Amino acid sequence: MSDTDTFLDELEALLGKPGLLRDSDAMARYVSDWAGESLGAPLAVARPASVEDVAEVVRRCNVRGIAMTPQGGHSGLVAGALPARDGQELVISLERLDRVRDIDPINFTMTVDAGCILENVKRAAWEHDCDFPLSLGAQGSCQIGGNIATNAGGLNVLRHGMMRELVLGLEVVLPDGRLWQNLTALHKDNRGYALQQLFMGSEGTLGIVTGAVLKLSPRPTQSRSALLGMPSVQAVVDLYSLARRDCCDLLTAFELIPRRCIELAMEATPSLIDPMDQPYPWYVLMEVAATGPIDLSALLEQLLEAGLERELVLDGALAASDAQAAQLWQFRESMLEGQRRRGEHLRTDLSVPISKIPAFVSEASDAIKALDAECEIIAYGHVGDGNLHFNLLPPPTMANEKKKAYLHALETRLFEVLDGFDGSISAEHGIGRTKREAYLERLAPTERELLEGIKTLFDPKGLMNPGRILPPR
Amino acid sequence: MSDTDTFLDELEALLGKPGLLRDSDAMARYVSDWAGESLGAPLAVARPASVEDVAEVVRRCNVRGIAMTPQGGHSGLVAGALPARDGQELVISLERLDRVRDIDPINFTMTVDAGCILENVKRAAWEHDCDFPLSLGAQGSCQIGGNIATNAGGLNVLRHGMMRELVLGLEVVLPDGRLWQNLTALHKDNRGYALQQLFMGSEGTLGIVTGAVLKLSPRPTQSRSALLGMPSVQAVVDLYSLARRDCCDLLTAFELIPRRCIELAMEATPSLIDPMDQPYPWYVLMEVAATGPIDLSALLEQLLEAGLERELVLDGALAASDAQAAQLWQFRESMLEGQRRRGEHLRTDLSVPISKIPAFVSEASDAIKALDAECEIIAYGHVGDGNLHFNLLPPPTMANEKKKAYLHALETRLFEVLDGFDGSISAEHGIGRTKREAYLERLAPTERELLEGIKTLFDPKGLMNPGRILPPR
Repeated sequence: MSDTDTFLDELEALLGKPGLLRDSDAMARYVSDWAGESLGAPLAVARPASVEDVAEVVRRCNVRGIAMTPQGGHSGLVAGALPARDGQELVISLERLDRVRDIDPINFTMTVDAGCILENVKRAAWEHDCDFPLSLGAQGSCQIGGNIATNAGGLNVLRHGMMRELVLGLEVVLPDGRLWQNLTALHKDNRGYALQQLFMGSEGTLGIVTGAVLKLSPRPTQSRSALLGMPSVQAVVDLYSLARRDCCDLLTAFELIPRRCIELAMEATPSLIDPMDQPYPWYVLMEVAATGPIDLSALLEQLLEAGLERELVLDGALAASDAQAAQLWQFRESMLEGQRRRGEHLRTDLSVPISKIPAFVSEASDAIKALDAECEIIAYGHVGDGNLHFNLLPPPTMANEKKKAYLHALETRLFEVLDGFDGSISAEHGIGRTKREAYLERLAPTERELLEGIKTLFDPKGLMNPGRILPPR
Repeated sequence: MSDTDTFLDELEALLGKPGLLRDSDAMARYVSDWAGESLGAPLAVARPASVEDVAEVVRRCNVRGIAMTPQGGHSGLVAGALPARDGQELVISLERLDRVRDIDPINFTMTVDAGCILENVKRAAWEHDCDFPLSLGAQGSCQIGGNIATNAGGLNVLRHGMMRELVLGLEVVLPDGRLWQNLTALHKDNRGYALQQLFMGSEGTLGIVTGAVLKLSPRPTQSRSALLGMPSVQAVVDLYSLARRDCCDLLTAFELIPRRCIELAMEATPSLIDPMDQPYPWYVLMEVAATGPIDLSALLEQLLEAGLERELVLDGALAASDAQAAQLWQFRESMLEGQRRRGEHLRTDLSVPISKIPAFVSEASDAIKALDAECEIIAYGHVGDGNLHFNLLPPPTMANEKKKAYLHALETRLFEVLDGFDGSISAEHGIGRTKREAYLERLAPTERELLEGIKTLFDPKGLMNPGRILPPR
């Protein structure tokens, strides 16, 4: 019996049969994520059911020099939570830590296990007339711990901020198995360095989040959505500026959508009907939400009027009911499915200052078209965050084996253009392994030295999610 | 001529005459802060006028092993930015770095030098119909760099967050004089570890902030204030819960004020008139603000009605004009002056979960009264942040020389009670030197090890603001 077998047997004795998966069928669902193609091979999958067990598993791995991959709901897009292909990493899944520990609606906080699925956290908050305002496509499967480790964003960032603004306290198992507990429910606390901020967005490389205190908001009692036909990206940005003022910061979403996405949505969901009498080059899908006695329809109508008058808006459809609003948002969902059906393509997650969105879309489109006029550009995103998913679809006739190199060349060119706008190659998805090289190429030496120093301070053996963000030791 | 004299002569040659103060009269205003009593003695005061000069001064200090005290607008309350008494620390004042570098109202950002006074930053934003929503008593003198270094809070945190939520990018001179530049204007950026979050709130111990990109909001076009008479602290907390919902997150301030503070305010400003026909044990001073077509008066009236109906509110005065509102807020200003006139007293800056405010105020008051029934308790604060300034005034008859020991004993007892509520001894003022011992007593060994490791990583020689937060090397 090998040392590794002994180690795994001992882990199984600690965690019980359902706590350690070693069979490749059972492990199958722990080796791929939403990006799909990135398959890994774990040493085994540990599924501890308590914080103490997470700590003990980590402690043992640290002693034995075994690398660890903390894992949430498999909805990552940069291979950050997938085990490496070498079969040497132990996956530590948080899925059995799924308790809501406590809700305090007067303090507008809740304390949860890291393995809680986002949707369940939201539902638990709703029962107390509160809301946890993180809103993602993956919310039915992603876990809070993963949201924290990746500093998740999503649709409502312009109103509520990224994950780091929605967390008050954290509980983290450090790479040596010690527990760092700071489950504070304090809204204001200025003691010492902001360690919890450092853990957030560190993609599991500094420790494993096991619990958190989340900030809640009042649950909105009303919301209104509108889809607007727009002449240009510039008009979209100008309207956003107007909307932030006229809608009194009650904006919860303001999405840029190109005509092509409306078509892709209708391809994917044939029951969807073209929302306006004629097509427009760009659309805005927006939402305002409120608690209390505010006339949201009047707000939206006034904005639409101002937009029409200034010729920013060409046409608009205000949802008259929640069902109509759901139908508008169906376009946002279905356009993603429509893209997926087109097979392998380049998904990006860029950000630029909001004011530079129009120039960036124009320059980047020109640059891509100059490389290949046949490439299809699908640029949509969250205007209020300057966050664009500037995706590129190869011509339908292209042979599959050519796509990887083709898409890589396009990405390289796109990132070059982005550099000229002081943009980010990862607005919300993180770095993981997929974007590591492009990230490191752009990293200043001073910053790299500080990041490597922090990694070494927290994880001197380099065993915690190695090779994500920074190269493995 | 001593080594030190040569060093200072060389600094003067670099910075020019107005760039280096060595005369004790000229240095007088750099050795005290708002807390008043904490006087230090600097080696000299450097006043570099460019980022490059800051970096060069720091580089030279690092080489020569000279300790540095970065300094903003002298409005700190924990002796964090005051030079030590040993005359060995070089004060580096940022006051000459006071340029607004750039405003981008479409991106809702502005880029500023660290030495910009908060009030001037706000004014510059207003010119573009934007607002920088940090609001402090000290805003006429405090500087942005200090606000960042201390993660400043203030009156509007419940709506806009602490300073760390209002900053997108930073520029920092590291303790060895290298420049770390991350002046990003991106609203969303998930690349690498959150170094800028680490700098924020580190009280100048990890480097000197020289510039920042700030997040702006639309400038409110209207606001309404109200002063409400309340039966109890519990009623105040219950009303807050109602207000967050009924006022649709448009609340910008929600202050708890005890009757004694209204009296202190009227003592300090005799033109103030008791705001209601009869005194109430507690008051709420609140404000809602909005852009766009929202009827704020209706919102407040409805809240007041609901509060009266549930017997949470006993009486209310809604300001009918901006002048009336200013008069209500005059109470908040004057009550501070009223306290100051009472001479040496204990100022605290505590936080507890909002839901625990009533029990904390009650238990803490009992504990203090048990020590000395003559001690006067003045507990006010920002309800939405759970932030209480639970201040203690010695009996007027007490001899001055007895006050220090008396107040220290009270503080020790108060912090003990606070520990039982999982509270913070520093909600917004930071640790500095004044609160270091009480902070370290409560610091878990694991966390201390991580903090010391971070300090050593950034500042291996321990020269940057030594002895603040952590003990000097």
